[in-house]
Amino acid sequence: MEEYAKHCALDGRLVMVGFGSIGQGVLPLILRHIEIAPERITIVTADERGRAEAEHYGIRFIKEPLTRENHRTVLDPLLGRGDFLLNLSVDVSSVALVELAAEKGAMYLDTCIEPWPGGYTDTSVSPSLRSNYALRESALAVRQRHPDAPTAVITHGANPGLVSHFVKQALLNIAEDTGRDATPPTTREGWAALAKDLNIKVIHVAERDTQISSVPKRRGEFVNTWSIDGFVSEGSQPAELGWGSHEKTFPPDGSRHEFGSGAAIFLNRPGVTQRVRTWTPMEGPFHGFLITHSEAISIPDYLTVREGDTVVYRPTAHYAYHPCDDAVKSIHEFAGKNYVQQETQRLIMDEIIDGVDELGVLLAGHEKGAYWYGSQLSIEEARQLVPYNSATSLQVCVAVLSGMVWAIENPGRGVVEPDEMDYRRCLDICMPYLGPVVGAYTDWTPLEGRNKLFPEDVDSSDPWQFKNVRVI
Amino acid sequence: MEEYAKHCALDGRLVMVGFGSIGQGVLPLILRHIEIAPERITIVTADERGRAEAEHYGIRFIKEPLTRENHRTVLDPLLGRGDFLLNLSVDVSSVALVELAAEKGAMYLDTCIEPWPGGYTDTSVSPSLRSNYALRESALAVRQRHPDAPTAVITHGANPGLVSHFVKQALLNIAEDTGRDATPPTTREGWAALAKDLNIKVIHVAERDTQISSVPKRRGEFVNTWSIDGFVSEGSQPAELGWGSHEKTFPPDGSRHEFGSGAAIFLNRPGVTQRVRTWTPMEGPFHGFLITHSEAISIPDYLTVREGDTVVYRPTAHYAYHPCDDAVKSIHEFAGKNYVQQETQRLIMDEIIDGVDELGVLLAGHEKGAYWYGSQLSIEEARQLVPYNSATSLQVCVAVLSGMVWAIENPGRGVVEPDEMDYRRCLDICMPYLGPVVGAYTDWTPLEGRNKLFPEDVDSSDPWQFKNVRVI
Ligand SMILES: NC(=O)c1ccc[n+]([C@@H]2O[C@H](COP(=O)([O-])OP(=O)(O)OC[C@H]3O[C@@H](n4cnc5c(N)ncnc54)[C@H](O)[C@@H]3O)[C@@H](O)[C@H]2O)c1
Ligand SMILES: NC(=O)c1ccc[n+]([C@@H]2O[C@H](COP(=O)([O-])OP(=O)(O)OC[C@H]3O[C@@H](n4cnc5c(N)ncnc54)[C@H](O)[C@@H]3O)[C@@H](O)[C@H]2O)c1
Repeated sequence: MEEYAKHCALDGRLVMVGFGSIGQGVLPLILRHIEIAPERITIVTADERGRAEAEHYGIRFIKEPLTRENHRTVLDPLLGRGDFLLNLSVDVSSVALVELAAEKGAMYLDTCIEPWPGGYTDTSVSPSLRSNYALRESALAVRQRHPDAPTAVITHGANPGLVSHFVKQALLNIAEDTGRDATPPTTREGWAALAKDLNIKVIHVAERDTQISSVPKRRGEFVNTWSIDGFVSEGSQPAELGWGSHEKTFPPDGSRHEFGSGAAIFLNRPGVTQRVRTWTPMEGPFHGFLITHSEAISIPDYLTVREGDTVVYRPTAHYAYHPCDDAVKSIHEFAGKNYVQQETQRLIMDEIIDGVDELGVLLAGHEKGAYWYGSQLSIEEARQLVPYNSATSLQVCVAVLSGMVWAIENPGRGVVEPDEMDYRRCLDICMPYLGPVVGAYTDWTPLEGRNKLFPEDVDSSDPWQFKNVRVI
Repeated sequence: MEEYAKHCALDGRLVMVGFGSIGQGVLPLILRHIEIAPERITIVTADERGRAEAEHYGIRFIKEPLTRENHRTVLDPLLGRGDFLLNLSVDVSSVALVELAAEKGAMYLDTCIEPWPGGYTDTSVSPSLRSNYALRESALAVRQRHPDAPTAVITHGANPGLVSHFVKQALLNIAEDTGRDATPPTTREGWAALAKDLNIKVIHVAERDTQISSVPKRRGEFVNTWSIDGFVSEGSQPAELGWGSHEKTFPPDGSRHEFGSGAAIFLNRPGVTQRVRTWTPMEGPFHGFLITHSEAISIPDYLTVREGDTVVYRPTAHYAYHPCDDAVKSIHEFAGKNYVQQETQRLIMDEIIDGVDELGVLLAGHEKGAYWYGSQLSIEEARQLVPYNSATSLQVCVAVLSGMVWAIENPGRGVVEPDEMDYRRCLDICMPYLGPVVGAYTDWTPLEGRNKLFPEDVDSSDPWQFKNVRVI
């Protein structure tokens, strides 16, 4: 058996809530890189998925869906000071679990701020309140209520999560390549000043998942390489984006929030219906979907430069996601049924026969044009690296691992977002599992190839206006 | 060997131009149902596809791409009075061949009015001139130049073609089911009056192709169940629709033509980027693509009621096409590259493992709501019925057969469109090859399920406004 470096030891117990694609993928990484005896790990989940794997590793497996009513009773005996609550579920309120962990003195990590079931599509509240912006504000509010809580890392998967660290590395790389000082800033203000100095107008989380399956999608089936419920939920939320200080045209269907940081806006439409133009090195230009994500709010918030109360700099930031082709078909079908979810779902894993999850950040508007920095992990390499994973899940799982390690190493920080963590430590832990991690400049802009076949309403004074990025 | 009814005899020779999915699929039907010796048939095509089939049937196969320069020289020795020119090619000007056939005294049939290569995307001319509207006007103009020409049937495949006959049958069915006189009208004015009397506001050619392949689509590959070049071409043309007299809101990106019948308008965007809401019995509601097609112009033109010069009635009519899932992915990729066609293409035939081509007409706005009438041909049934076919090709091929038979039976009509032919004769020939042909009423409208998750700008005073049908 290969010997893997243990990054740290968890002295307490570990409770994993949810054991779907990410839970199953991360378990071997935790056992490999964190000192913890399997007997001290418990899985609490809602269905049978992953039971065989849990048994394989000798992990206790409790099938007990958590609810608003039962979650404290179920988790109470499993959590105390020094323990770790790892939340990789859907349909369980992250804020409720962050709160519980804080009270119990346990550390916490999740990869998404989930509400209780129905929260994403609760039409009794406004779109503003169904946004990730609102969910993020509610999670950050716990910080005020529990200032001395153990570290609770929120939204630390691949994206949100790892991509915040990619952004920092990309900023340094561009700084270096444009002859600037490339010493890593040590404060939020320092990073924001660097982004402003480089004139980063736009940050896309630009992802192209080319994984394909040997089993074709059937009618009435939603197929994806990670949580279908998770994707359908966030795809039904309003499309959200950090709203940059360089933007000249406010979207006709856009709205600002009446509370919170003010870093992001939303469009009054679900993300699955909004395409945006973006670029990755392997794919070149393509249309991604503007699916809402926490990083589209936390990154531009983190990089905002203010003079007094006035925002003098902020990049536009959003996700531009081309899921696997079968998911593209799935969301076309889903949109065609007015967002009524398909009856069956299939999370592909073993039937993937080829493909790469090309996931990174595209920083644009600076003097060298646009720069993509990220991971090009193939399904073959992912399988060789860690069992129970696809390319998609492994990028998330290794980020979860790195977030856990950082939390264990920094146990008293309260609620933290990826942007506030040590990007270097996290990247170092992740690197061996990301396949080729590349940086690539491009002169592509969203004006390329436009206005040819038909007249298009573009803003040619600045390629990096959201108006140009958006597909109408 | 089974004995099939011969519908008629072709005394002259038959020249088939193009031998792709439709050419290959129609040949066995011609040999089965039209009296003609294989020695009198010649195929002129641009590549090797279908050579084995031609050899199997003992048909002469000439590989010689036709061009603006050579087409008269190549076809001259093959065509004379009483012969038949069957044009099933792409990239060969239909108008040039109609003209040549007229001069030679030969009959003619095609399934699409094709221009010479590049004509669909020639940005040196306006979108109006790249439309099917303009192509149709140019084909109809031949009628004036050759009033005594032999019958030249234009655009007689499944759609355009068969669907014009479906519309007539559907009108009669609705008349009967609403207690009206259901005697078939004998004039254009009669059919138009019937459509007006029934208050048909909208006619969709509503198609859902559910055929799936065992071989997944690869990056950079366009996959479809019929001509990829044909689909890419029409999908790059402006989205076009017959513009109904009930419409209240002219599309902001819409344009009228400055010449011709005035029956249709176009949107200043390619059809592959315009989704529309429609409905078929097996699929229920879905998003189709507003791909331009001749029938979207000829049907509403045919059904127009005028008082003097004033249009008092016309239905809105357009295609609402959900191609096979692999084609949905293909056009997403194609649009993402700003309409630069993928390097490889794969027309699926043998690798289809399941699915139905559900192709019919949805007539809506009348007192019973909406009524779909059409064919639900499965891949299994298509394969049992005729070799060298999929569900998609067979619907086209049998329509080609019926159009040829009608032309041979009515040899002196000059240029005719499907709407001007004998719908009953054509349907009778097609029926045995269409699988279940069903009529189904539905109370679905494009307002169903709308305005729920997000506020939507709908016209609730009339569900059948194009504004409601269009996906924004
Ligand atoms: N940040 C990222 O990069 C990233 C990437 C992928 C997934 N995610 C997030 O990770 C989470 C899990 O994703 P996944 O792909 O593993 O999802 P999945 O659908 O594969 O699994 C979800 C798991 O949650 C469990 N679950 C459902 N309801 C529950 C309940 N009431 N109580 C306890 N467990 C419950 C299910 O049984 C299942 O084990 C989601 O929130 C998703 O959005 C984040
Ligand atoms: N009305 C309908 O329902 C309907 C349905 C399907 C296809 N079509 C039309 O039928 C036509 C053929 O479709 P398909 O699916 O068979 O197409 P395909 O792409 O499978 O085949 C096209 C054929 O045209 C030939 N060709 C190309 N360039 C040529 C040239 N310069 N000279 C001679 N031949 C040439 C090719 O060699 C090939 O045999 C297209 O115009 C298409 O739009 C109509």
